[in-house]
Amino acid sequence: MGNFVWSGCDVTELANRFGTPLYVMSEDEITSRIRTIKACFDDRYERCSTYFASKSFLTRDMLRILMREGTGLDVVSGGELYLARAMDFPPDMIMFHGNSKTASEIGDGLDYHVGCFVCDSVEEMLLIDRMAGLRSVSANILLRVTPGVEGHTHKYIATAGFGSKFGIPLEMVNDAVSIGMKLGNASLRGFHFHVGSQFMDNSCHIASLEIVLGLISRVYGELGFVTSTLDMGGGFGVAYVDSEQPQPVDSFICPMTELVERFCSDLGIPRPSLVTEPGRFIVGPAGITLYTAGSVKDVPGAGTYVGVDGGYPDNPRTALYGAKYDALVANKYGDGPLKRTTIVGKCCESGDILIRDINLPEIARGDIIAVKCTGAYNYSMSSNYNKNPIPAVVMIKDGQPRLSVRRQSYEDMFSADI
Amino acid sequence: MGNFVWSGCDVTELANRFGTPLYVMSEDEITSRIRTIKACFDDRYERCSTYFASKSFLTRDMLRILMREGTGLDVVSGGELYLARAMDFPPDMIMFHGNSKTASEIGDGLDYHVGCFVCDSVEEMLLIDRMAGLRSVSANILLRVTPGVEGHTHKYIATAGFGSKFGIPLEMVNDAVSIGMKLGNASLRGFHFHVGSQFMDNSCHIASLEIVLGLISRVYGELGFVTSTLDMGGGFGVAYVDSEQPQPVDSFICPMTELVERFCSDLGIPRPSLVTEPGRFIVGPAGITLYTAGSVKDVPGAGTYVGVDGGYPDNPRTALYGAKYDALVANKYGDGPLKRTTIVGKCCESGDILIRDINLPEIARGDIIAVKCTGAYNYSMSSNYNKNPIPAVVMIKDGQPRLSVRRQSYEDMFSADI
Repeated sequence: MGNFVWSGCDVTELANRFGTPLYVMSEDEITSRIRTIKACFDDRYERCSTYFASKSFLTRDMLRILMREGTGLDVVSGGELYLARAMDFPPDMIMFHGNSKTASEIGDGLDYHVGCFVCDSVEEMLLIDRMAGLRSVSANILLRVTPGVEGHTHKYIATAGFGSKFGIPLEMVNDAVSIGMKLGNASLRGFHFHVGSQFMDNSCHIASLEIVLGLISRVYGELGFVTSTLDMGGGFGVAYVDSEQPQPVDSFICPMTELVERFCSDLGIPRPSLVTEPGRFIVGPAGITLYTAGSVKDVPGAGTYVGVDGGYPDNPRTALYGAKYDALVANKYGDGPLKRTTIVGKCCESGDILIRDINLPEIARGDIIAVKCTGAYNYSMSSNYNKNPIPAVVMIKDGQPRLSVRRQSYEDMFSADI
Repeated sequence: MGNFVWSGCDVTELANRFGTPLYVMSEDEITSRIRTIKACFDDRYERCSTYFASKSFLTRDMLRILMREGTGLDVVSGGELYLARAMDFPPDMIMFHGNSKTASEIGDGLDYHVGCFVCDSVEEMLLIDRMAGLRSVSANILLRVTPGVEGHTHKYIATAGFGSKFGIPLEMVNDAVSIGMKLGNASLRGFHFHVGSQFMDNSCHIASLEIVLGLISRVYGELGFVTSTLDMGGGFGVAYVDSEQPQPVDSFICPMTELVERFCSDLGIPRPSLVTEPGRFIVGPAGITLYTAGSVKDVPGAGTYVGVDGGYPDNPRTALYGAKYDALVANKYGDGPLKRTTIVGKCCESGDILIRDINLPEIARGDIIAVKCTGAYNYSMSSNYNKNPIPAVVMIKDGQPRLSVRRQSYEDMFSADI
C-alpha cells in the first residue's frame, strides 16, 4: 500500500538516510505529553511540579526540551547529574535520587546545589549532612519510604513492596525523622515514595498514598514534623501493545492531588508541595526503533523467523522483563496477506526475541521494520553486547528530523582499550 | 584477619589504585584454562581446534593472549570482527557466527577471508555465495543445525531446543545440504551445533552429538556429502557458587571426541575435524569485580542491605538470568562474626540485587567487596544504564597488574550527543 508515516516523517526514508538500527523520537509527542501532565494539576493544585525521570531517556537534546518546558529533572547518578550540569540545567529543579549514592556523587550534588536529595537510608542522610557541613552549604532532603504495597507489575519494576531494596520501612520512619529533624546542615523537607513502573490503573498509587498520608499525619502529631514536600514518584502506564489499556494519566494524578487536599484539610495538617516524576509516560510512546530485516527462515510449526540488525543490545527489555512490543513493516504498510512472524534480534542469546507471533506482510531481507513505543528505557539501557554499536537517535519536530545522537562506530566501542 | 589476595595481588590495593567498580582479570588463569582445554584432545584427536567465544569477553589484551596461545576466535558480529582485524588476528583462525548477519558484516568477513562462516539459514548461505562471487573470493561455510535437545540450563542460554531462533531444524537439513553442495563460490564443509551455555554435565552434549552424527551419516549416505568439519560449540559449565559442581571439562570433550571417532570408524565415514568454542569456561572464573560499599541499612526481617557503587550496569546477569554469585569483603577477609547481608546495586531497578542473603563480616561504607567469577559476560554485557560509566579492566600476570581497559569518563558517555 505504501510507506508508514510517523510524526510527519516517512520512516523508511529516515532508515535510508540515517541507517539502521535507528531510534526515532518525536519532540512533538514528548512536548505534548509533558503538557498533558502539567494540565492535570495546573488548575487544581497550585504547588505541584513535574520532574522528568532522566533514567528513561537522557540526551542533551532531551534536556533542551525539558528546560524549554520548565520541567524539573530526576537524576539517579553522578553521570546524569554531569549532563544536567554541562547543560546548565537549573540546579533548584533537580531531584537527586538513588539507593546507593557514592560520596563522590553526593559531593557533586552539593557542589551544584541541587534542589533536593532523596535519601534512601539514615546513613546516607547523615553523610549528606556531614558533607554539607564540610562545604558550608545547606541541602534539602526527602526520605524515601516504602509503603509496603505490592505493585501489580513486573517484579523488577515494582519498588515499594516488603523487602524492597529501596527506602525506609514504615516502622523505622519515626526514628529516621527524629534524626532528620536534628541535622545541622541538611533540612528534612518530607517524603518520597514510588510504587514502581508501568501501572495500568491507580489502585496501587492511591493505596500507597493513603499509607504515606497516614505517616505524614503520624509524624506531625507525634514529632511535630511538617511535611513541606511530598514526592509521589511516577509509574503511569503506557500501551506497548493494543491489549494494554492504561487509565489516562489524569486519572492517576487528579485523585492523588484531591486525596492530599482532602486529607490535609480534614486533619488540619499543612498541605505539602507535590512532585510527580514521570519518565516512561513522557518518552515511551514518543519513540520507535527502525531495523532492517536480514535472514528470513521458516521453522516448521513455529512460523517465519525474521532476523533484524539489532535486538538485545538496543532493547534488552524483552529478555529482561519479557516485554511485549508491536511492530509493522514500514515499507509495506497496509500490505497483505499477513503471515505469522517472529522478529528475532541478532544477538547470540535465545532471549533476544523482539516480538513473537505477530501477523505481518511477507518480509524479505532489506525491508524496514518499525517497533513501536521504544522511547523509554531502550536507548538508556542499550549496550555493546556482541559488540554491536549503539544506534543513532533522530529527533523529529514539525515533521523535520534532526540527528540527536550520532551512531557509535566500531572504533568508538574499543576506544578505552589499551 | 587481613586483605584478600587473588592471582598474587592484594585486591584492596587494586581498588585503591585503580578505583571501583573494577573488573580484575587473571591472565595466568586464562592461560591455564586455555591449556587445560587443549590438553583434553592434544593426545587424543589430532584435528581438534579451540575457538574462543569472544562474545564472553573481548578486548585487545584478550586477543593478544589468544594469539600467543594459538587459539582461534569465534566472532558473532562485524564489531567483534573489526577488533580481530585491527589486531591482525589470523583470518583463517576466525569462525564467523551469528543468526542474523547483515550484508555489510558478511562483506567484512569475506574481505578479511575469515576461515569459515557458520550459516543460520539457507537464505544466508545463498547470500554469502552470491557476495563471494561478486568479490571473486571463496568462502567456507558450516550449517548451524538444531538438534532439538532441550538444555538443562536457563532458557535464555539453552539454544538447541525446538523453536529456537538458531539454526536449521533437522528435517530441513537434507534440502539445505543439497543446495549447499551446488554452490559456486562457497564450500559447505559441515555442521555446527551448540547446546547452550553453562551445563553442569555432558548429557545434553552427548545426546545432541549423537543426533548430529546420525545426521552426518544420513547426508553421507543419501547425498554423498562428506562432513569435513564439525563444530560442537561450547557450554562447559563453571562454578559461580560452591553449590554448583560442574563436571571437569575433559569429561565433556573426551567422550565427545571418542564418540565421533567410534561412530565414524564403525560406519566407515571420513572423520571430520572438530571444533570447540569455550567462552565462559576460559574467562568466567578468571575474573572478579571489586566494588566499594556505600549505603548500609537494616531492613527488619530481611537483614542488612549494603549498596555498592556498581550493579546492573556492570553485571546485568543477576537481573537477566537470576544468576547467583559469591562474594567476600576484601579488606576484612576472614573476619567475623558473620551477618546476613544482601548486596544491592546502585541502579533504580528492583532486579539490581547482586547477591541475596550471603553471610559476610559487618560492612561499613568504604569497604571493598569482591564478587567472584565475573570474567564472562559481565564486561561484555555492560551498559551505561542510569548513566554509570563502564568500569576499567585490570589484567594480572605473574602478580603484576596492568590497566587493560580505561575507565569510561562521564564525558565519554555523552560523546555522541549533539
